[in-house]
Amino acid sequence: MKRIVLGLQYDGAPWLGYQTQPHQQTVQDQLEAALERFACQPLHTTCAGRTDAGVHALEQVVHFDTDLVREPFSWVRGTNAYLPESIAVRWACEVPHQDLPHTDQFHARFAARLRTYHYLLYNHPIHSPILRGKVGWVFRPLDVERMQQGALHLIGTHDFTAFRAAQCQANTPIKDMVRIDIERRGDMIVFTLAASAFLHHMVRNIVGSLILVGNGNMPPSWMAELLAGRDRSKAAATFMPDGLYLAHIAYEPQWQLPQQEALLPWLA
Amino acid sequence: MKRIVLGLQYDGAPWLGYQTQPHQQTVQDQLEAALERFACQPLHTTCAGRTDAGVHALEQVVHFDTDLVREPFSWVRGTNAYLPESIAVRWACEVPHQDLPHTDQFHARFAARLRTYHYLLYNHPIHSPILRGKVGWVFRPLDVERMQQGALHLIGTHDFTAFRAAQCQANTPIKDMVRIDIERRGDMIVFTLAASAFLHHMVRNIVGSLILVGNGNMPPSWMAELLAGRDRSKAAATFMPDGLYLAHIAYEPQWQLPQQEALLPWLA
Repeated sequence: MKRIVLGLQYDGAPWLGYQTQPHQQTVQDQLEAALERFACQPLHTTCAGRTDAGVHALEQVVHFDTDLVREPFSWVRGTNAYLPESIAVRWACEVPHQDLPHTDQFHARFAARLRTYHYLLYNHPIHSPILRGKVGWVFRPLDVERMQQGALHLIGTHDFTAFRAAQCQANTPIKDMVRIDIERRGDMIVFTLAASAFLHHMVRNIVGSLILVGNGNMPPSWMAELLAGRDRSKAAATFMPDGLYLAHIAYEPQWQLPQQEALLPWLA
Repeated sequence: MKRIVLGLQYDGAPWLGYQTQPHQQTVQDQLEAALERFACQPLHTTCAGRTDAGVHALEQVVHFDTDLVREPFSWVRGTNAYLPESIAVRWACEVPHQDLPHTDQFHARFAARLRTYHYLLYNHPIHSPILRGKVGWVFRPLDVERMQQGALHLIGTHDFTAFRAAQCQANTPIKDMVRIDIERRGDMIVFTLAASAFLHHMVRNIVGSLILVGNGNMPPSWMAELLAGRDRSKAAATFMPDGLYLAHIAYEPQWQLPQQEALLPWLA
């Protein structure tokens, strides 16, 4: 048995999220159908982090086990031949598997050390027809300095219950937020958040609350109050999925994954 | 009677080109329907340059005549309320009209002095799901230096018959090419072409031919041969519309149009 790891990029707009559902309109369903057509056997996959409907991935990481012998690039080319244009395998590799005890094996989800998301926010009086579905939009001018001040309160290990969706299935609301960068590039504001793991809707709930700081409705210290209050109903509404990108999953170097720099293509 | 000028941005992917057609699936049809709903009177528009099916505009310029009195931003907001999300009016202004002799009036097409297009080409072994419909794609590595050398042969006033579609309706194939810049930004190659005017399919035919120079199939001097030969059948096939953007139409400063810097949003 071999364990194969894939790097997957997708536009989330046409799909009802990552995780498989009976109606098959999900990224996982499309990926497993394409793998099965290429491999001529059913292959069950496990991903690093499930994304919601409309959320994109620059580099999702997925693994599966198989006894088939294929060159890594065959998995890329062969699977892409059966995938819709909105989903693509970017790379594939084999990780050591057979002779390792269970806890030492590579696992797309459990071996992940750090997850990085981007949120792209178009801040202009008129929405962008060309970037629709790919960016969030706020027409009022936002103060990036204020938002960055507010975001600083979230850095570190905290109980993020205030930003957690009711349907979240995580074992614990305590997560370690390593980094929140907010940068203006012309009319675009790029949020970059990196944490050990994220709760359901956590990035969109944080971005929604930071927008209320950025437009002057709330002071930066409100972010600290929200965090301390642990009350989801006090924070802002979940912001639109359009601008959210799962950008990078970090693993230990021992796995030697051929991961690619997960900048947005147009920010490279 | 007033003459109103609009700056229009659109994603060309959902539309069968700019120019009105009986089936109404064009940008002009959508714009005129939205204007009519807002103004409660039919308004006939004239654009600076018709774009083909699948071709985008960062800033198309359009004018129409009306006796209605509206604030410029009302035209923007009111028209956008009735436009699909893939089309947006970015600005509006009134130009002097009534008292001028015909030849001195502003005209979106005839008063245009220079037209600038971008072509975005994604140069990576795997296509980009996130940018599909928004960029062309070549998986073989392209040499930007070679393409730039080839492009230099096209600068100046030339007969561009070699790059002209059979169905082109222009009066003359002689155009003045002011600038062709080709720049690599990570995996993206950005072509910028500026000319007095362009023939039908001219940018896509030039980009298609430059790709054959960039991938080593043809020498840079081939571009000069093509130009001199004036034979459309010798040049490359018309390249895909996905990466083509009408970026900017330059007019005399006297018109004081509130044009915006027409960089691609993600390149700003």
